[in-house]
Amino acid sequence: ILSGNITRMKFLGKAFLMASIISAAAAFLSPKSWASYILGTRAPLCTVWGRQGPAFCNVSHMEGFLKRVDECNIPLEEGKETPLPFFVAGVQVGQIHQEHVKRLKQFPDAFTVKDGVDVKLNEKLDTFDLRTKAFDTVNRKLAEEGVITGWREEPYAVSAEFGTPPLATTERASAGLYGIMSYGVHINGYVEGADGTLRMWVARRSASKPTWPGCLDQVVAGGQPHGVQPGDNVLKECMEEANIPRELAQAALPTGVVAYQCQRPGGRTSREIIFTYDLKLPEGFVPENNDGEVDEFMLWPLDKVAESIASDGGEWKPNCCLVAIDFMIRHGFITPEQPGYMRLLHGLRAGVSAAIN
Amino acid sequence: ILSGNITRMKFLGKAFLMASIISAAAAFLSPKSWASYILGTRAPLCTVWGRQGPAFCNVSHMEGFLKRVDECNIPLEEGKETPLPFFVAGVQVGQIHQEHVKRLKQFPDAFTVKDGVDVKLNEKLDTFDLRTKAFDTVNRKLAEEGVITGWREEPYAVSAEFGTPPLATTERASAGLYGIMSYGVHINGYVEGADGTLRMWVARRSASKPTWPGCLDQVVAGGQPHGVQPGDNVLKECMEEANIPRELAQAALPTGVVAYQCQRPGGRTSREIIFTYDLKLPEGFVPENNDGEVDEFMLWPLDKVAESIASDGGEWKPNCCLVAIDFMIRHGFITPEQPGYMRLLHGLRAGVSAAIN
Repeated sequence: ILSGNITRMKFLGKAFLMASIISAAAAFLSPKSWASYILGTRAPLCTVWGRQGPAFCNVSHMEGFLKRVDECNIPLEEGKETPLPFFVAGVQVGQIHQEHVKRLKQFPDAFTVKDGVDVKLNEKLDTFDLRTKAFDTVNRKLAEEGVITGWREEPYAVSAEFGTPPLATTERASAGLYGIMSYGVHINGYVEGADGTLRMWVARRSASKPTWPGCLDQVVAGGQPHGVQPGDNVLKECMEEANIPRELAQAALPTGVVAYQCQRPGGRTSREIIFTYDLKLPEGFVPENNDGEVDEFMLWPLDKVAESIASDGGEWKPNCCLVAIDFMIRHGFITPEQPGYMRLLHGLRAGVSAAIN
Repeated sequence: ILSGNITRMKFLGKAFLMASIISAAAAFLSPKSWASYILGTRAPLCTVWGRQGPAFCNVSHMEGFLKRVDECNIPLEEGKETPLPFFVAGVQVGQIHQEHVKRLKQFPDAFTVKDGVDVKLNEKLDTFDLRTKAFDTVNRKLAEEGVITGWREEPYAVSAEFGTPPLATTERASAGLYGIMSYGVHINGYVEGADGTLRMWVARRSASKPTWPGCLDQVVAGGQPHGVQPGDNVLKECMEEANIPRELAQAALPTGVVAYQCQRPGGRTSREIIFTYDLKLPEGFVPENNDGEVDEFMLWPLDKVAESIASDGGEWKPNCCLVAIDFMIRHGFITPEQPGYMRLLHGLRAGVSAAIN
């Protein structure tokens, strides 16, 4: 693998026009050609400006980054029937696959199904409480039948869009079945050295977690339950997951979102908006887990984070890769000169438009 | 106007659940109701976490920010004929409005027009040089006729997407007529005080500039000519526009893009990708203009920048507002708790997908 030290970069004194032509040509290379860069049999393609001066254009990283983005944006299988739009109180809040549409027909008090057209929460359910109760009744039945698994007792808001009054809540574990938008907060915890180099705290998820056990993760991350502000959720999760006291956690800066839509096995649609935060931690601080959800914390140079994400998607919880890549873009470690930059930016926020009604 | 000091924030010790409900409700308020916040007749809506602790949710700012985004994303006039897709070498690179389609029919050596379907650069023009020459010949005729104005002698790349080998170049002033993607670099020049507060250098464009004379702008910004890397362009523009020496300018970090599509009078389509950079400048440094394009530089507290953008779009060059708003999002001054946050994020990058073929 091309050594990718992106914090200490060397200068290649090449003409920029030449670099531009070579870099441009690289975008047309076949996957086979990419492989030769990854195997280190070709020199880096171009000189680019990056954090703290000129940097290598690490093409092997870009290829891996784009793969990670694709793994979170999985489209509908070819030939598979399009899921039906799902409406609550006249507003589309999600989408439901055919196998679940059939199931929901068993509950006519809760759902009105117009075959091939749409699914509506019964319009007679005209208050927040009635709707929430209907979701709850159906969800518990589907959990008994084993259709909904991994019950969390965590109510997720069902809304037209984030920040609008929720029309109802539904159990977090049911979000994929209804294809409703899920929200979460992920915190990039990093340390800045005296020389400006950055290191990032990486968490290894507990081997006993129901989802992505043993995988790498941000220092702190969590779902966004109904009735809690994202910034307050950050404070809570910082304490639970990494023993970061409120005084430190309050410095976490919201920096935007990462957003994707993914068709999963079993007719589930993950639509996720992750509110990203940057939290600069002091040099001596060491995170400790309080809720049993993390097995270890590691402080990695940023190039090790990049290398690990680019070379092995399997070690990471997929959406955490996107959050770390977004961090590297915002902090100048991935530059416009690298072929694929626009594709990467697009993939990191491909789900944003779906969040707006 | 609600005093919007977003660098020194006060804490409102309100329950977060309450804040969440109130904040949510705000999103449903009519424009009339928004006005009462702007006029200061209502209290701020909610407590949110922002840079350096809790902050007011400055709803009046959000309304203005969303307006600025809309001003750069103007859709096709209702009832107006859809522009035809424009192909070069089999790749769609732009779009051309009906009035120009008619004009281009005069140049059958250069353009092949299929009425109601598409416009193609003549496929016989099968090299970069032939295509570039054809664009040049036609553009000069159209400039003589007054259809193309503000000729710059700046070749813009005509490409499938950024970083791929250009199929041709065309004069910058013709980009809107063909609806090809334009690229630029904008640099947020800022100063960080010892207490962490940020100030931003704001430029007032020269009164004699052909576009947006006298308007506010980033400290440095420029178009992205063919054959120059964005990072190298940043160094060049930093010297020309603000006398920022190479040693300082090299610290400019690429942080992503702002992207929009705008239908303008005269059948022109602006499709723009702006590569954004953050450049932290030392406390005593004062920019000076070298090329006559800037009349003055001002170092403003960030809340003054926000206030100015939110309250008066007219004072700013429109796309510069988007770059400054993006800075405020990435640096934690605009938070997910503020109603409209997702809409704002969407609008800042609404043109990204158009940049990918």
